[in-house]
Amino acid sequence: MDAIVLFDYAGVAVFAATGALAASRKELDAMGFVFMAGVTGIGGGTLRDLILGVPVFWVVNHDYILVCAAAAALVYFTAHLVESRYRLLLWLDAAGLAAYSVFGAWKGLVVTGSPLVALVTGVLTATFGGILRDVLAGEPSVLLRPEIYVTAALAGAGAFTLADLAGLPVMAAASIAFLVAFAVRAGALRFGWRLPRYRSRPGRRPEEIE
Amino acid sequence: MDAIVLFDYAGVAVFAATGALAASRKELDAMGFVFMAGVTGIGGGTLRDLILGVPVFWVVNHDYILVCAAAAALVYFTAHLVESRYRLLLWLDAAGLAAYSVFGAWKGLVVTGSPLVALVTGVLTATFGGILRDVLAGEPSVLLRPEIYVTAALAGAGAFTLADLAGLPVMAAASIAFLVAFAVRAGALRFGWRLPRYRSRPGRRPEEIE
Amino acid sequence: MDAIVLFDYAGVAVFAATGALAASRKELDAMGFVFMAGVTGIGGGTLRDLILGVPVFWVVNHDYILVCAAAAALVYFTAHLVESRYRLLLWLDAAGLAAYSVFGAWKGLVVTGSPLVALVTGVLTATFGGILRDVLAGEPSVLLRPEIYVTAALAGAGAFTLADLAGLPVMAAASIAFLVAFAVRAGALRFGWRLPRYRSRPGRRPEEIE
Repeated sequence: MDAIVLFDYAGVAVFAATGALAASRKELDAMGFVFMAGVTGIGGGTLRDLILGVPVFWVVNHDYILVCAAAAALVYFTAHLVESRYRLLLWLDAAGLAAYSVFGAWKGLVVTGSPLVALVTGVLTATFGGILRDVLAGEPSVLLRPEIYVTAALAGAGAFTLADLAGLPVMAAASIAFLVAFAVRAGALRFGWRLPRYRSRPGRRPEEIE
Repeated sequence: MDAIVLFDYAGVAVFAATGALAASRKELDAMGFVFMAGVTGIGGGTLRDLILGVPVFWVVNHDYILVCAAAAALVYFTAHLVESRYRLLLWLDAAGLAAYSVFGAWKGLVVTGSPLVALVTGVLTATFGGILRDVLAGEPSVLLRPEIYVTAALAGAGAFTLADLAGLPVMAAASIAFLVAFAVRAGALRFGWRLPRYRSRPGRRPEEIE
Repeated sequence: MDAIVLFDYAGVAVFAATGALAASRKELDAMGFVFMAGVTGIGGGTLRDLILGVPVFWVVNHDYILVCAAAAALVYFTAHLVESRYRLLLWLDAAGLAAYSVFGAWKGLVVTGSPLVALVTGVLTATFGGILRDVLAGEPSVLLRPEIYVTAALAGAGAFTLADLAGLPVMAAASIAFLVAFAVRAGALRFGWRLPRYRSRPGRRPEEIE
């Protein structure tokens, strides 16, 4: 439980920054930045730890709370320099998704020994913070965007699990898996990569049906 | 802890199918189907287990994860055959609500021995997956619909708890309670059964008040 | 763990009332009132207890469930007498926020001994019930309102933590901290107190950016 923790700090920091960017888009005050950074930064890992039945990571190690506050402060003072905060949010979200898909899978594997649970905790850790951010900010969820999202988290969690089962050293497995997840999501953001969408028809609104 | 588990599998499977139907209405990709099926299928039970302080059911038994994936695949390949996916979603949701109100009450009763807690865990297990589904899909929550919803879950949890306290065998109590909950919700869907609504006036929007 | 519990009951009762008021604004039925009261009343404390890894308070002591039901009944029969339910909701929310910021900080401090964790559990306990209420009712979150909100919760949690570290008796520290938090939020409601908002520009909608 040494170097792999870097992925945890990285996930928390960049997700916290995306939460603060969402706060800036909503023009919240400084405490709103800290709150959104905190919820987004530690939300995914908190759900993961609750599900795995282990102590919540930031209750054990308070540094994570300070990381979120620092990310909020950084964004508060620099967000006006950014041309498109939403695009920056999406790219940071991609990095956080990649880091957290790896760390979530690692922790699921360490705690339960089950590759299947590792896939689920990887995906949940990687996506839940962003879901909370979008719900709290009242924005359309990044989940509903057309390009690849959940699939990138699954690719990262799956690559880590496979590499780990294949006997690679943990940091090698984690680094490869991070690159896999980030590459998939980056391709989605840069080139609009998408899986074939469900090709039927969009849902009607409830009122139209009855 | 034998046959009653059937209600758990049934609840997971049909809620997972409603999550996949919501994904189809939003035209997500295949992984979006699996994600929405998973969150909807295991969301209510996960909350229940966290609240009761017992190991989360799908971490202990991975079959539930596979059930969700199978339900997602089934919906992915057949949803275009359905005339109204939203109406199918509502009916499957009714079956899941009934099954999960019974199983949630049973588990609450087994773990805590308290009928009052059993009512709450029955209602929470039965409703929380659907709430998550609607929030993630950005749809108006099924909770806010005019016809009976939460009341059906309470009827199922209450019928099970009463029948169990009256000494009926578990499967008999569970079957009766399932039918009670499903009948109440089916009446609501088919005939628009509703309790008297609060008869004052709808809320104004925050902007209109200040 | 004696008199301080009064703040817990107070927080549950007034948050439950705000949930029932939200139900009245949405014209739900009587069970909808109870459900919204329950989720809003016990939501924040449930999250707090899960994060701290202690048994969930209302599973241990069922009185809290009955408090929520009583608050729902009271609102159901009297809400039509109120001129502006939304304004009443905001003022009750302020009292609940103050009570729960104190109790959440106290519990965080008792369980972990860490002032930093106490700040976080104070803020989370105080805000999470209201967030759930707004998400379930499909209302714009109180978090996104321009006047001070999260800051009031932090002021309450911080005042309690400081006063406790300074050696004040628990009830004195709690009473002072309650008044601090309530005064800050009341000033925000009555006089529109706000921190300087982030002064850049509001976010564009995702469609406008790409």
